[in-house]
Amino acid sequence: MDVVINNAWVLTLKNNRLGIIKEGAVGIEGDTITYVGSSKDLNYKQADILIDGTKHVVMPGMVNSHIHTSMQLLRGGAQDLPEIEWMNKGIGPLAKHLTKDDIILGSKLGVLEGIRTGTTTFSEYTKNVEELVEKVYLNYGARVVATETINEVAQKDRSKLKPTDLYELDVAKGDLALRRNEDIFTKFKKSDLVSCLYGPQALDMVSIDTLSEIKRRAIENNSRIHMHVAQGERERIQIEGRFGKGSSTVKILKEKDLLGDYLIAVHCHDTNETERELMVNENVKMIGCPSSISMIDGIIPPIFHYAQLGGDVGIGTDQAPGPGNHNLFREMRTISLLTKTMMKDPTVFPAWEMLQLVTSQGAKVLGLENKIGTLEVGKKADIITFNLNQLLLTPVVSQPFHNFIPNIVYSATGTEIDNVIINGDLIFHNGSFVKVDEQKLIDEANARGEDIYNNAKEDWISADSKMVKDVKKGLL
Amino acid sequence: MDVVINNAWVLTLKNNRLGIIKEGAVGIEGDTITYVGSSKDLNYKQADILIDGTKHVVMPGMVNSHIHTSMQLLRGGAQDLPEIEWMNKGIGPLAKHLTKDDIILGSKLGVLEGIRTGTTTFSEYTKNVEELVEKVYLNYGARVVATETINEVAQKDRSKLKPTDLYELDVAKGDLALRRNEDIFTKFKKSDLVSCLYGPQALDMVSIDTLSEIKRRAIENNSRIHMHVAQGERERIQIEGRFGKGSSTVKILKEKDLLGDYLIAVHCHDTNETERELMVNENVKMIGCPSSISMIDGIIPPIFHYAQLGGDVGIGTDQAPGPGNHNLFREMRTISLLTKTMMKDPTVFPAWEMLQLVTSQGAKVLGLENKIGTLEVGKKADIITFNLNQLLLTPVVSQPFHNFIPNIVYSATGTEIDNVIINGDLIFHNGSFVKVDEQKLIDEANARGEDIYNNAKEDWISADSKMVKDVKKGLL
Repeated sequence: MDVVINNAWVLTLKNNRLGIIKEGAVGIEGDTITYVGSSKDLNYKQADILIDGTKHVVMPGMVNSHIHTSMQLLRGGAQDLPEIEWMNKGIGPLAKHLTKDDIILGSKLGVLEGIRTGTTTFSEYTKNVEELVEKVYLNYGARVVATETINEVAQKDRSKLKPTDLYELDVAKGDLALRRNEDIFTKFKKSDLVSCLYGPQALDMVSIDTLSEIKRRAIENNSRIHMHVAQGERERIQIEGRFGKGSSTVKILKEKDLLGDYLIAVHCHDTNETERELMVNENVKMIGCPSSISMIDGIIPPIFHYAQLGGDVGIGTDQAPGPGNHNLFREMRTISLLTKTMMKDPTVFPAWEMLQLVTSQGAKVLGLENKIGTLEVGKKADIITFNLNQLLLTPVVSQPFHNFIPNIVYSATGTEIDNVIINGDLIFHNGSFVKVDEQKLIDEANARGEDIYNNAKEDWISADSKMVKDVKKGLL
Repeated sequence: MDVVINNAWVLTLKNNRLGIIKEGAVGIEGDTITYVGSSKDLNYKQADILIDGTKHVVMPGMVNSHIHTSMQLLRGGAQDLPEIEWMNKGIGPLAKHLTKDDIILGSKLGVLEGIRTGTTTFSEYTKNVEELVEKVYLNYGARVVATETINEVAQKDRSKLKPTDLYELDVAKGDLALRRNEDIFTKFKKSDLVSCLYGPQALDMVSIDTLSEIKRRAIENNSRIHMHVAQGERERIQIEGRFGKGSSTVKILKEKDLLGDYLIAVHCHDTNETERELMVNENVKMIGCPSSISMIDGIIPPIFHYAQLGGDVGIGTDQAPGPGNHNLFREMRTISLLTKTMMKDPTVFPAWEMLQLVTSQGAKVLGLENKIGTLEVGKKADIITFNLNQLLLTPVVSQPFHNFIPNIVYSATGTEIDNVIINGDLIFHNGSFVKVDEQKLIDEANARGEDIYNNAKEDWISADSKMVKDVKKGLL
């Protein structure tokens, strides 16, 4: 075998159970898992790389179902702002000064911090995703689900529009974007690390004709549509303006025959129970982004509601300016606590369910359940090890229950991950990246950070957000 | 000077501002801060210990305003349970098997994990607090505010009572406890690390006569009363039973002249706006425990409401079985996010205010504002360094605002702390405890953990909580 991890607590996450194996081992040949079982039944002496799993949990690499890494250099750039100021007065004046290289550099930061905290699959959503796939994800050996943004809004600068001004849609723009979207299917066809989705940005930003064409192609290509659905007021106003008072995104999608098992709906904040039932019945998948949305909008994503109806749900970290980073351990705890308080019920979203959300459920939402998301012979070797040997997780007990299951969800920080294997490759080993010079990247990002903010200084100050006022008061 | 930290971003937290000093230094002689200012104006070549603060933030040690460490060995022992099961069927059957030594050992874990994540002052609340002060806090050199529990409930085992059965109160029991409480004042009078509070457990568990006597002594001793106030339904039922329908804890405290600047009220979940106004007007201090209470009860503590009224508020971690650990970085982020969603307003509880809650505000609530909570010449040297040089906090930018302020609150994990100084003593240095063998403690706790759970196994299973059912389903 090429790699063996032995003597560990193995969590297979198979069949909607934890599937705990005591003194378990996982064996890998090439890119594939070839053994999951007891350590003592495996002859691991012939392994090329042997990782001692003593006092460790071994589990499937985590799936970040919705992520934008392109603004990562703006981490900490906008938060504690009124929702309406966040983009226009907070991030906007800074983002204007990001160069193409800054986007690549930022994305590198985002992907490495994801890997470092146990994420092996990233569902990246951006314009010109091809470049990030090549220069960042494949460069680092990360698994990526690539979505190219398709947006037909004609106006380049929407910050000049009033909320009630309807966007003009430019179908030619959509065509171009759809061509870029199709290109990635061709380009990465043979890559085992890349899969592709279609990315109409939202119902208010694409025409029904384009959406219908995308649906046709998604079905033809055996792929899915990854779309922001019913995110909030901005979208609602546009939908009512275009389709009439009382219209909603979900109603229109249903009416136009655009709800189906090919749809992955992100956010869904502005949906009601009836609409969510409709979506679940049509086998639509849902993704929520707990830290991002609670931080920027003060909203708890309806992930629990959707799961309660029997829908498949995944978790994403969305973007960094706001909540800060791409750490799925943090997201497990965040959505569990937020949901417990929303429902005034401490039993909802228990630890085991959080572990499923970021592994097997995430894989299912993205259509990768036959490839990743659990530890099973024949699946791709996306595997992480979690070091239980530390103060904040002590004691480790296995009788009459495994106390480390809740502790991984509620006590861990994400920094406990010490090995990350993606597609059979050991990317992060004993707490360090095998091929990446992490400190060099940090230094580059720091240098660029100072430059970007320096260039953006005047724009940022003249936007006069609440943050500018806080700076003047010595609070930022 | 004995210790100097130079070239750092110093946050003084003075005067309700961040008080950021670029390339700043802090100097210490004995137990006292003797320099806070620019690095270049300080001759630090004569320092006994020089800590290079490059790429670090130096800030006041954090104040955990309400903590019970005695059940720390039961971390991960009960969560995701109905509130009513948590104590009786979750923790109870395990806690019965904790020995006196287990309580000490657990407390050690709790205090060390607090120090490791930047806490320098612990407001410990327990029965027989004297033992923890001596064997744990002073042993490790931690600053402690010690509260001895005073509880007059006659019934030893309350699990047999129906919720509507009134407790019998035994004033003799209260007298004994009050004597223990007074003893710690005498015993630790000369210790610079220890201060003491009075600890009537809650209004439903002590008589008005005892409370009035405690108040008299607290004022005489220039101390304060640290009490659980209006925690929830159990207390409400008892108060109405004793004082009549429509009674509430706050109303009774007011009526009996027991609200004043000597009172530190923990929790306050079952208070309304009028009652909170009354408390703030009487200069009562409030403490909330975000992770603990959201996890166990699905409740968001009314910390924001109290602060909005102008009241002084602090943050505590309460106990570990449930939320897991004592990490105030986690608490800052947790209460900010919970409050943003509760108020549906992302501007509330911004980063700078969270930093105040766990430093200057915490000190004020406990009556220690002249001693700790900010970095100022003449104050006690409780100081932590936070390493900004890492992936999850990159880039670090200082113009036109300091992006690391929100990043410390929203992105940090608490593991970034690499030096902790308490009362001038360097306890934790470059990521390791100076005098404590951390691994030895972890190993001891693991061994005891397995024993305790093994002994408790039958009791735990026969209590038949939801957790037992989850184990049977392979989910725990």
